[in-house]
Amino acid sequence: MTILRATPAIEAIPPMTPFIGPEQLMREGGHPHILRLGANESAFGPSPRAIAAMATELPRLSWYGDPESYELRETLAARLGCKVDEILIGSGIDDLMGLAVRAFVGPGSIALTTRGTYPTFAYHVTGYGGGLETVDYRPDGTIDVDALIERAAELQPGIVYVANPDNPSGTMCTRGQIETLLEKTPPQTLLLLDEAYAEFAPPHSFMSTTIDARLMRVRTFSKAYGMAGARVGYAVTTPRNVETFGKIRLQYGVNRNAQIGALAALADDAYAAGVVGEVERGREEYYALARSLGRKTIPSFTNFVCIDYGSAQEANAVIVDLMARGVFIRKPFAPPLDGYIRVTVGTAPERSEFAEHLRAVRPR
Amino acid sequence: MTILRATPAIEAIPPMTPFIGPEQLMREGGHPHILRLGANESAFGPSPRAIAAMATELPRLSWYGDPESYELRETLAARLGCKVDEILIGSGIDDLMGLAVRAFVGPGSIALTTRGTYPTFAYHVTGYGGGLETVDYRPDGTIDVDALIERAAELQPGIVYVANPDNPSGTMCTRGQIETLLEKTPPQTLLLLDEAYAEFAPPHSFMSTTIDARLMRVRTFSKAYGMAGARVGYAVTTPRNVETFGKIRLQYGVNRNAQIGALAALADDAYAAGVVGEVERGREEYYALARSLGRKTIPSFTNFVCIDYGSAQEANAVIVDLMARGVFIRKPFAPPLDGYIRVTVGTAPERSEFAEHLRAVRPR
Repeated sequence: MTILRATPAIEAIPPMTPFIGPEQLMREGGHPHILRLGANESAFGPSPRAIAAMATELPRLSWYGDPESYELRETLAARLGCKVDEILIGSGIDDLMGLAVRAFVGPGSIALTTRGTYPTFAYHVTGYGGGLETVDYRPDGTIDVDALIERAAELQPGIVYVANPDNPSGTMCTRGQIETLLEKTPPQTLLLLDEAYAEFAPPHSFMSTTIDARLMRVRTFSKAYGMAGARVGYAVTTPRNVETFGKIRLQYGVNRNAQIGALAALADDAYAAGVVGEVERGREEYYALARSLGRKTIPSFTNFVCIDYGSAQEANAVIVDLMARGVFIRKPFAPPLDGYIRVTVGTAPERSEFAEHLRAVRPR
Repeated sequence: MTILRATPAIEAIPPMTPFIGPEQLMREGGHPHILRLGANESAFGPSPRAIAAMATELPRLSWYGDPESYELRETLAARLGCKVDEILIGSGIDDLMGLAVRAFVGPGSIALTTRGTYPTFAYHVTGYGGGLETVDYRPDGTIDVDALIERAAELQPGIVYVANPDNPSGTMCTRGQIETLLEKTPPQTLLLLDEAYAEFAPPHSFMSTTIDARLMRVRTFSKAYGMAGARVGYAVTTPRNVETFGKIRLQYGVNRNAQIGALAALADDAYAAGVVGEVERGREEYYALARSLGRKTIPSFTNFVCIDYGSAQEANAVIVDLMARGVFIRKPFAPPLDGYIRVTVGTAPERSEFAEHLRAVRPR
């Protein structure tokens, strides 16, 4: 059959999948059930209020969602102390990140980040024809802010991307570090702060919501709010940056029920606080589990924990062995963290089950 | 405040909104309720089975949807008599259309369509730096297939886009016309057939699902299946084209509940047939209403009807007067259809209500 060639830029992209989904692992491995601790989803589900609000509105799913997501933006603006036109809603951070790369990197430009951080950023940079430059994590798994500042000054990139708290390390920059990074960000560079896990970290560790032309903070309802499957996140930035996105975003792209669920979730602070508390307990359990196995962990500001297995080979073997037991986790892919496994905090019973499996997996 | 400039290509795009949403019209016009007949949403909602399936799964909305949408693709492939790897799921046709333009048009290339057809196609072409060329509708509101063939041969465009049945005209190309169009499509041009309204047209009027490197058919759960707010649609094309999209799509972009609802909707043919039947009755009512007002209509193969008001000025005045009465409809923006209004088939009570309002609106 004839082949239809895409544009040269798209043809040049190698086929790649940032992550294989658990459903595919289940199909291919013949697992009817798995212990799903690989994608940092919330084990605690959405707030019951969000579930109720979405259930009530299901008969009206025949309506498109408000393309302005006005009510949700209004509510977020009030909480964040910013203006409605400083907020943009997207179908999760992946969507917003794609828009940012499309708008501010583009073909032939450079994006700068940490080698091994959340791979979807690199996926978008490649997809939009940009070049990716990286600095390494520091040996302890923290982001090397000084190196980012230095390289940004050299490269004048379209975007500097920092996940804060970081995925997959779970580490976090201090408030002072982020303030310095913003100050030193070149005048025509966007500092894209991916705060997907923000709710799990102490609120005082974040800058106040400074609106700066060079700054875009993105957050999500996928993690602490337990709505990853809904696809809803938001960017906080200048009205002009919001307007720039407005020229290229999918105007009707955000699921109507996702908007409604997000609004209801925001109104249930007690539930979110409960989730955060349970995640803290879960992290402590994972630290203790690792200690009991004589293994190091990286202190985490997220809903997952990295456990050291010494080498990429060993960590990969653990992943494979766990999957054979029906346990789905993932691992960092780049040094210096590629000898770690990464496990999401599950419910208390899921954590116990995971502990049993991990104890049973023997190093080669 | 400093301005952060986007890439020159993005800066060059004028700010534009393909459609203002009804929620914005309500906010700005101070309407607490409106008769919502402007966006060709289903007045009949999703299938009760789809609602039940989605309601059951709401607690698991904390999980990402399967990035492969495997079950949904498997079910669609079985229905369409094609292979799983010939189907791609996206967040509605708008999403799939954006991917098509990004992959096959690109900066400096040309896309060809009908002047005045579904504007989101043009939005994507502009957004990805392509040039849009158009041919006019024929005077009766049908697509001028001969003109498209002729211009495509001249221009060798990246994409020829045809909405079939068409929006906003409601007309449809014959099976023979589409077969000829495909035959005459240049070897490196994608024929993008937007079949959003397919379920409202007679099944025998479509080509059988020919897989051809130059052909991509896109369909949606937004219209007959009543799930516009869910954001789920699909493309049928070659495995290679699916793979090309796989390099640039949002891997985890499709709402989990949208996948589940779509699957359940497909299993409820009786409900979909009932909706289609009621839409047929509604179209007949609108034709009769227009006749009673001495106005022409265009025979429609969709869930909406265009009614002639003679001039763009007059049709605009009707839109404005109806909105003042809390009735939201839209209209084609380009000649020769810009003297028409376009109204979605509502429920029987909504249709009666609309008829009363339309009778009350007096020509200037």
